[in-house]
Amino acid sequence: MQTNPKIQQQLEKWIEENRGHVILGTTAQYIPELGKADPSKLGICMLDEEGHYYCAGDTDIEFTLQSISKALTFIALSCHYGLDFVLERVDVEPTGEAFNSIIPFEIHRPNKPFNPFINAGAITISALLPGQTSQKKYEYLLHFLEELVGHPLEMNREVYDSEWKASHRNRALAYYLKEAKFLEIEVEEALDIYIRQCSIKVSTKDLALIGLIIAYDGYNPITKVKHFSEEIAQVAKVLMVTCGMYNSSGNFAAHVGIPAKSGVSGGIMAAVPPKLHSQTYEFRAGAGIGVYGPAIDVQGNSAAGTMMLRQISKEWDLSIF
Amino acid sequence: MQTNPKIQQQLEKWIEENRGHVILGTTAQYIPELGKADPSKLGICMLDEEGHYYCAGDTDIEFTLQSISKALTFIALSCHYGLDFVLERVDVEPTGEAFNSIIPFEIHRPNKPFNPFINAGAITISALLPGQTSQKKYEYLLHFLEELVGHPLEMNREVYDSEWKASHRNRALAYYLKEAKFLEIEVEEALDIYIRQCSIKVSTKDLALIGLIIAYDGYNPITKVKHFSEEIAQVAKVLMVTCGMYNSSGNFAAHVGIPAKSGVSGGIMAAVPPKLHSQTYEFRAGAGIGVYGPAIDVQGNSAAGTMMLRQISKEWDLSIF
Amino acid sequence: MQTNPKIQQQLEKWIEENRGHVILGTTAQYIPELGKADPSKLGICMLDEEGHYYCAGDTDIEFTLQSISKALTFIALSCHYGLDFVLERVDVEPTGEAFNSIIPFEIHRPNKPFNPFINAGAITISALLPGQTSQKKYEYLLHFLEELVGHPLEMNREVYDSEWKASHRNRALAYYLKEAKFLEIEVEEALDIYIRQCSIKVSTKDLALIGLIIAYDGYNPITKVKHFSEEIAQVAKVLMVTCGMYNSSGNFAAHVGIPAKSGVSGGIMAAVPPKLHSQTYEFRAGAGIGVYGPAIDVQGNSAAGTMMLRQISKEWDLSIF
Amino acid sequence: MQTNPKIQQQLEKWIEENRGHVILGTTAQYIPELGKADPSKLGICMLDEEGHYYCAGDTDIEFTLQSISKALTFIALSCHYGLDFVLERVDVEPTGEAFNSIIPFEIHRPNKPFNPFINAGAITISALLPGQTSQKKYEYLLHFLEELVGHPLEMNREVYDSEWKASHRNRALAYYLKEAKFLEIEVEEALDIYIRQCSIKVSTKDLALIGLIIAYDGYNPITKVKHFSEEIAQVAKVLMVTCGMYNSSGNFAAHVGIPAKSGVSGGIMAAVPPKLHSQTYEFRAGAGIGVYGPAIDVQGNSAAGTMMLRQISKEWDLSIF
Repeated sequence: MQTNPKIQQQLEKWIEENRGHVILGTTAQYIPELGKADPSKLGICMLDEEGHYYCAGDTDIEFTLQSISKALTFIALSCHYGLDFVLERVDVEPTGEAFNSIIPFEIHRPNKPFNPFINAGAITISALLPGQTSQKKYEYLLHFLEELVGHPLEMNREVYDSEWKASHRNRALAYYLKEAKFLEIEVEEALDIYIRQCSIKVSTKDLALIGLIIAYDGYNPITKVKHFSEEIAQVAKVLMVTCGMYNSSGNFAAHVGIPAKSGVSGGIMAAVPPKLHSQTYEFRAGAGIGVYGPAIDVQGNSAAGTMMLRQISKEWDLSIF
Repeated sequence: MQTNPKIQQQLEKWIEENRGHVILGTTAQYIPELGKADPSKLGICMLDEEGHYYCAGDTDIEFTLQSISKALTFIALSCHYGLDFVLERVDVEPTGEAFNSIIPFEIHRPNKPFNPFINAGAITISALLPGQTSQKKYEYLLHFLEELVGHPLEMNREVYDSEWKASHRNRALAYYLKEAKFLEIEVEEALDIYIRQCSIKVSTKDLALIGLIIAYDGYNPITKVKHFSEEIAQVAKVLMVTCGMYNSSGNFAAHVGIPAKSGVSGGIMAAVPPKLHSQTYEFRAGAGIGVYGPAIDVQGNSAAGTMMLRQISKEWDLSIF
Repeated sequence: MQTNPKIQQQLEKWIEENRGHVILGTTAQYIPELGKADPSKLGICMLDEEGHYYCAGDTDIEFTLQSISKALTFIALSCHYGLDFVLERVDVEPTGEAFNSIIPFEIHRPNKPFNPFINAGAITISALLPGQTSQKKYEYLLHFLEELVGHPLEMNREVYDSEWKASHRNRALAYYLKEAKFLEIEVEEALDIYIRQCSIKVSTKDLALIGLIIAYDGYNPITKVKHFSEEIAQVAKVLMVTCGMYNSSGNFAAHVGIPAKSGVSGGIMAAVPPKLHSQTYEFRAGAGIGVYGPAIDVQGNSAAGTMMLRQISKEWDLSIF
Repeated sequence: MQTNPKIQQQLEKWIEENRGHVILGTTAQYIPELGKADPSKLGICMLDEEGHYYCAGDTDIEFTLQSISKALTFIALSCHYGLDFVLERVDVEPTGEAFNSIIPFEIHRPNKPFNPFINAGAITISALLPGQTSQKKYEYLLHFLEELVGHPLEMNREVYDSEWKASHRNRALAYYLKEAKFLEIEVEEALDIYIRQCSIKVSTKDLALIGLIIAYDGYNPITKVKHFSEEIAQVAKVLMVTCGMYNSSGNFAAHVGIPAKSGVSGGIMAAVPPKLHSQTYEFRAGAGIGVYGPAIDVQGNSAAGTMMLRQISKEWDLSIF
């Protein structure tokens, strides 16, 4: 079957309509290498269950995963140790505090981080990845992701170095986790694996493909490969809905309604589950979406990307709600 | 078409299996009238889109809406003024703090309450109900609910009186809201309407019916009446998923995955949307669920009710995720 | 013995030098009646142990006690019930939070308010004043104060009414206290007595006299009357040093070093204990100080009054440290 | 002049009377080396202005300064750079939060730490000590202290190592400070100097002598040497009164009233200023006090030491209030 030219045209039209929204954000200045990105870029790739990619705008740029990696580490770790093991070490409750806040820990003294998408939870579970060293842990995750996307991946060394130097707040968090006995390995090791995973380079196509696999509950409908269990995919989608878009996750759920995870690099990975009763024809059998728009809003999400997804979801009835 | 006896038997079996879990909770002691409930009770009603009720356990008891009313006020208000009006006055972001916490307000000084399911947000929007007095506002809401359930409803006066006397914390919140200029009416009026709505008596059948209407995006598939817009229903479901079960909303989403709202009376209203690709036959076309189990856990949710819903969702593949 | 003309001249000079600092503050806008005060006013009265008053600047204006009353209620209550009774119901620990904050209560859930100079503690102890009604409690305090100053006192009704209407935040606090079981009487009664005490009219001369009595450990060296015990006076001075000047108490202690209590009306009452080893002759035998300067800084203290006291303390070596 | 045998006898009696209070505390378990101390020990040395030492109980034990060093670094730094320089970099406001809390920083985002006696403030100012390396900074402080006590001092290497390993929370704080740009040197350097200063070994005699010098506003009345300015001594005493005894500073001020700084090793350094109008003869011309009692209470202060100081202050009228 062929790609649908109407879908392609529509996406291109939406890219143009939403380009203006890039001025509602700026590139992430607190990580100098990310700050250098071109804030005017905006691109999207959508992938359907038959393997058709619909790409529009600036989709030839690679960017780093940043917080999108949090969802992927959660999945990789759950695959290896089982979901119960992971959920004993990190909760799945949303929190209204900032992603790097220590306040809820000091106030509530929880016995595990609130969820794997705040930095505290993400560092905690990254440190649990299989392997004796951060290098081994990183390789485990990288291999897992390469299996998903079907090609080699690598780290952006400049971004890694830039983040390593700018990671005082994450070090503060990690030492706090160490004090609370949530971290079993050394802090510097934990930060190394965490910052490595954040620095992995991907394209919007990669994100679309992983998003599709999550939408299909761990199953790649194109290659017919089952990568992870439905149970893991479901919890991943719950996390994406409740905590995936930083402190505007609720608004994203209300206005877009697609499980998604964003990163401060401006990437968004979204998983559109099949919706047989959809009111439109487009992507009724589900889709994966990769967005890139490095001008991020105050919450940390691609400003134009979020606006565009809102439009797309509305027009094509993609919300799970 | 007839009811399915297997479904009926299965529900009765699950009630028996989950009865033991009532010991994991206690009745709400801080509201004396609620504290008097019989903690050993457990009942469930499920309603399918054809109008078949499947009721098992203690379903002949009426109980008060309590926090379940928060979802209903949100819907009623959105119907009257439009969703935009409401979302300008209350946000839809989950918060990790307790439902009656003042901390996030003092720390973040938001320009509106975080969501309509924390008490601050609920009192704010109840005060906005149409009508010049709390009596009129209450009547508006009551009428709206009577339209949904198809029969007269009334308040439990003893519960109202008990809550009115025990509402120091809500008064503190309401005066805080007044100071922040979120409340346009007098605090005592706002509390009156809020406590009235909490004191409305319902049955598990009522909750199942309203749940079904929410699952059907505002449409009653039995009477063929459209009560509210799809847009409103979707935001209601988002709120139920992200904030509906107090501070275990994330866990409920992960393990049950059905939009739901609970109250400290032990009631739970759940909305099972149609899921044509469900792995099981039961309730593939959606359902509404009403649960009653007054022994609530530390989070405020029916202890046995939550456990039972987890089992039901798993067995019949009812999760939206 | 006569008054010392040099001291009088010096004070007048300092008033003129510090008048310009009134622009560093504004009158308390959140209580409309206080907001109407003339922000350019600045006056000071100092009283020595022989009964000589040295008054300079705008000392013919009466103003309301506001938070200065917190120190006086603490003393009156301790006189009646004993210090132990009071310290069982309110702690004496400084807190870095705002005087009207609920945060430390929610975070730490203390078994009593942190100190009697934050609003929570002040309302708690005002409610304990002897008397069955707020009227009786108020009369008790008023009588106690009239004994100290030696003449009748009365309330500023306009200020009382203005505060009563603007007291949403204090109502929030008081209901929170009621919930925490710190308040034995009704919230409205507690607020009535609290706002009454805040609305009592005094002059800088009155404050100077009460300050002198505190400096002399409860003894009036002029009338030779013992009003309260040394033990009570000492704790009062500790509170004035550690919490008397809102969130700049530490800076005031470091740069002025005189036990003092301020109010948002712009009044400051300061108690200069005898200091036989003082490096200067002036007020070596102690003094009481009353200041009035209604332009208050962001912390709530008279802007010019604080600057002037800093200068006076330095020049005449009045610090207790 | 000779020592007064009555004072000596009285101190020995009080030691015996207060020994039983050691059971109200335990040694600091979170630093293993400190945890090993003998919790039954209790000793006190008082030094008068003529050079007479009155020592009773277990005064032959050396222990580490721990938080007592915070007061000394503050003084040393102020001597070198001037008080203004230091007060631009650290505030002098008490806070009700724990000494190692990050909450007030996240909530209030102050432009400098609240005071030099919470860990955040202490690390900040230790990092400012003169010298290019932490070794040089440490030597500067050590030399300053040796000048005060008149004999060589050294570090307890085991305690240093134990604290270095157990310092996750301090590392978290220090990285937080680095992020906030309060720390100009590297975090590891800052922690090295901070933990070194905490690990300096002293005796109760040493603390008594330094306490006396502080009481005498930087002047040693025995050797007639002026070590630091009156201005610095006064701010040090303000800090000791408002924040010197962790979160029971207010109670200590109310019930003891002597400027003091404690450490989790169980040491307390207290400065009794001259009080010519004292109601008793003992130490009317001031004193320095060193206490050692390693069983510390929940606040972090020597349990028996605090009780004993309360008794001494009351009996000999040593309070500054």
